Parts: sequence; structure tokens; C-alpha cells
Amino acid sequence: MIVALAGGVGAAKLLAGLVTVVDPSDVTAVVNTGDDLELHGLHISPDIDSVTYALAGLDNKATGWGVVDETWTVAENLKAIGGAAWFQLGDRDLATHLFRTQRLSEGASLSEVTAELTAARGVRSHLVPMSDQPVRTRVTLAEPPPGEEREVAFQDYFVRLGHALPVASLRFSGAEAARPAPGVLEAIAAAGVVICCPSNPIVSIGPILSVPGILHALVARRDRVVGVSPIVAGTALRGPADRLLRELGHEASALGVARLYAPWVGTLLIDEADESLAGAIEALGVRCVVAPTVMTDTARAADLAKAVLGAI
Amino acid sequence: MIVALAGGVGAAKLLAGLVTVVDPSDVTAVVNTGDDLELHGLHISPDIDSVTYALAGLDNKATGWGVVDETWTVAENLKAIGGAAWFQLGDRDLATHLFRTQRLSEGASLSEVTAELTAARGVRSHLVPMSDQPVRTRVTLAEPPPGEEREVAFQDYFVRLGHALPVASLRFSGAEAARPAPGVLEAIAAAGVVICCPSNPIVSIGPILSVPGILHALVARRDRVVGVSPIVAGTALRGPADRLLRELGHEASALGVARLYAPWVGTLLIDEADESLAGAIEALGVRCVVAPTVMTDTARAADLAKAVLGAI
Repeated sequence: MIVALAGGVGAAKLLAGLVTVVDPSDVTAVVNTGDDLELHGLHISPDIDSVTYALAGLDNKATGWGVVDETWTVAENLKAIGGAAWFQLGDRDLATHLFRTQRLSEGASLSEVTAELTAARGVRSHLVPMSDQPVRTRVTLAEPPPGEEREVAFQDYFVRLGHALPVASLRFSGAEAARPAPGVLEAIAAAGVVICCPSNPIVSIGPILSVPGILHALVARRDRVVGVSPIVAGTALRGPADRLLRELGHEASALGVARLYAPWVGTLLIDEADESLAGAIEALGVRCVVAPTVMTDTARAADLAKAVLGAI
Repeated sequence: MIVALAGGVGAAKLLAGLVTVVDPSDVTAVVNTGDDLELHGLHISPDIDSVTYALAGLDNKATGWGVVDETWTVAENLKAIGGAAWFQLGDRDLATHLFRTQRLSEGASLSEVTAELTAARGVRSHLVPMSDQPVRTRVTLAEPPPGEEREVAFQDYFVRLGHALPVASLRFSGAEAARPAPGVLEAIAAAGVVICCPSNPIVSIGPILSVPGILHALVARRDRVVGVSPIVAGTALRGPADRLLRELGHEASALGVARLYAPWVGTLLIDEADESLAGAIEALGVRCVVAPTVMTDTARAADLAKAVLGAI
């Protein structure tokens, strides 16, 4: 059994590779919901959807997000009548959000809905939200522009403001009262390998760790946890992970990631470009494995997955 | 100034004709919201939308409901993943529901959202929901089939169950606490003519009358109120109005409508097919005008609108 801690696109790519080298039903992905949002009355779970679409082979490989063969009829009509257009919702993607919102309104848990949606999409791996309770990443802007609140919801920072503004601090609203979703702690306890996917350490993995009990469970399995650095040669391959690390006082490097993860990650897989950092990482008590980590296609992602499994 | 009490399709047709013979900005439609529903997290106002689309020239004249040139990408995808598909939501129509739900979630009233949506669609007439508070038509089934609640929401009766089941009773949940939307009472008080559109007396006009204050305002203007019978030769042109009238102890005829409306409708316009009922209607103290009422196209609807205005 393999457990993966997953954010969005980076995790989705690695998992799509992983399920080509192991039995998909042996994989449980514990997915960040800190960047979930309510928009137009819909409950949107971007990371759950990114992972689901990738594992279903429905991910849009051209854009890196959303659904393949997507159409935009609703979004275009919404824009034409003056609706909020900053968060792009394709027609195929909207069906997911309508389904989820209806089922939640009927009393289903996010775990249950996620199981239904992945089954409907033919995904054989187990996707589990980190929690069935709402945990929301809130971002305090260092220099809020005129008209913006100082603290904004994650997607306002990430999408609406284009993650272009410096961040002063973050918090995971609701985390104290949240519980790990059913099966999360059991899966971590029973896993042969726990993969920390190459997701944003601050806003993708951070919210998962904020759910009481999960970090504790990971620390107990530290020798089975393999992280993949999302920072390569000091840069995030995608998104603002490098800037966020710096803005919040960390080093934007594989070494900075190792320092953050050292308490619960026994082995860190870093890119060949960062081989020179291996010694410093090992000095933290973190085993370091060097491999190509840039997933330009599913074959490279499968190779990375093999390297991760081989690291234990 | 003309005020129209409006349900869905019948009202939409008459109003589309009316605005070709008077200045559209002189028309205020007070629209039923008793059949509003929450589905997939979206606030759907079928009657407001039917009237808006008709006045915007966007109504689908082939089907009699929904938007012209509609596409069904979201609905098809939703069905494919097992979502509730009984209430058909086209892509263009969905944009309306997303807009409305988002604005309501931001604290806008249904009146405000309706004004925004009609403005965005280029509608010059004033559309006002009967109330900004939720009033919901609830239907008690005479013989609920296995697995159904005895009392169901209106759209469950009307769409999901195809209005094929006999009705024991109705109530308008929330009506006691509702207030007429801003401007409704003032518009009725100031109107030169109040048109009661050929909508279902029970489930389209009934909810409007259930909002405290509206019936009182109409009674005070009885001599200015012109109703159009939605029953022609004992039959509803569309929908279950005839069966509902019978099931709830009324006569399914223009005379039955006249009896229901007599306290507040001074003049009733009935179809030529019902000319023989004119004497009995007049005997109720309701002036009776006979005219063609079947609106097969906008020109016929305009003729009917002229007949209504000429009846005062």
C-alpha cells in the first residue's frame, strides 16, 4: 500500500505516472482541500479535481489544469452578463462541481462525494480529502493593493490576484476543529511507502499537516516517508512555491524544503540539478536521493515514481 | 404604468406581446418565486428566468421553455457521472443561475439580482420577484408512490414527477414571514392597469397572493385589475392547471377561475371558446370580455395585450 500526500498539478502528474508502475488500487492519495472555495454557490475542490482528472486520463496536458476537450459556454455566457469571471470554470469541469455541491447539500461528506466522483470517472486509486471538515488557507498580503482586504482567501491570492503579491503570513482557518478524513490515519499507519508529492510545501502540503493528527502519524512513519522536492535549482517548476518559501523566511531550495520536512520525511528525492545540496540535506538527518524530477510526460513521471519507490 | 402578475411561460408570452404595443419601461412584472429551487447549490428562479428570456428575445420558442440556441454540455457531463438529471439545465441558462447564486451569496437581494440580470439581458421592463424572502410552494400528494414523501417541493411534483400525480393540498412555505419585494405595493397602487397573466391560478398566481399585503393591495385596485383566463374550453393550454383546479375542489373552467379571482379581479378576459360562460361570470360581479387568448406567436400575444388594455 502506498499513500501519497497530494496538492494539485505536481502531485497529479506524479500519481498518473505512479499508477502505471503499481496497481492503482494500491494507491491512496490524501489530497489538500485548503484551497477549496465556494463560488457561484458551488463547492470547488481544485486539488481533488486535478488529481482525479489526471488519474482518469482526463487532464488537459496542454494547459496543465482543467479537463481535456473542455468547452467554455457557461463561462462565456456568465462573462457576457457581468458575472465573476476570474476563476475559470469549463463546462465539463462544472459538471463535477454541480455533482459535488448537490451531494454535499444532501448530507454526503466530502470523502463520500470524492469516492463517488472518482468511481464515476473510472479511477481505481483511492482519493481522500485531508479532512471532511472545511479547512481554508487564508493569505495575509504584505502590501494589499487599494481595495483589497489584508487577508484574502487562497484562490483570491492565487488566481484572482495571480499570486503576484508578496505574502506576509498564512493560516489554515478551521484546522483546529478539523479531523483527518476517515481512513487517512489508518492508511498512513499501514503504508509501505508514504510519498510527499512535489507539491507546494507551504500551501499544498502545509494544510494537510495542519489537520490535527496527520503530522503525528507521519512522524511515526518517518522512515517510510519519501518526499520529492518541488524546488529545482532554486525555482518552482510551477506556481509561487519559491517566492512563498522566501517570503515566509525559508530558503527557496531543495535544502530549504528538507529543513521544513526533516521532522517527518526520512528520505528526500531531489533533482540532479541540486546534487550539490545532497550533503547538506543528509547533514539534517534526511536521506537524500538524486534523480531526474522534471515530469515532462507520463513516462518521466513513471520513472520518477520508480525512483521514489526505489528510495525506500 | 402597467403591472403584471406573472408566472412562467403563459405570462412570458403575454408580456413579450405587451412590450410590442406599449413602452417596455412602463411595464412592471411581479413574478412568482414559489417554484424557485436550490439544486446543485444553485438558486434557480424558473419564472423570473422565463419572463426575462422572453422579454430579451432569448426564449426558446420551439420548446416553450429555456434559452434559444441552448447547448447541454454541462448537463450531459453531469448525467455521465451520475448526477441528478431530472431538472434540465442548459449551458446558457446555467450562467444565469451561477450569477444569481453568487450575488445572493454576496448579500444582494433577489430583487437586486433580478434587476442586474434583466439589465444585462437588455430588458427595459421592470421585473420584480413577489418577495425577497423565500416562499416555497409545497405539494402534498394524494397518493404518494413508494419511496416518495407525502409532501414534496414544487419542482419535484412539477418536473421530477411530471405533474402526473393527484394533489391533495398545497401550501406556500415561508409566506407568513415574507414581505412584498420593494416597490411591489407601490407599483400596484400606482398602476393604470394590473394584468393577471394567463398563468396557473393555483401555483403561479397563488404564491404571489400568499405574500402578506399583496392581495389587500389588489382588492383596493379591483376595478383596474384585468385577468386573463389560463383555462380555455376547460383545458389548460400548458401544464396541470386544469387538473390542479379540479383536485383542489374548483371548476376547471374560465368560470372556476372567475370564482377564484372575483375578490380582486374586476374584469376577466376569456377565450372565444368560452363565450357561453360570460353570463355566469358577470353574475359573480366580474366584468367579462371575450377575445382570442391563444398566443401561437408574438403577434397574437400583442393582440391579446391590446385586448387586455382595451378592457379597462
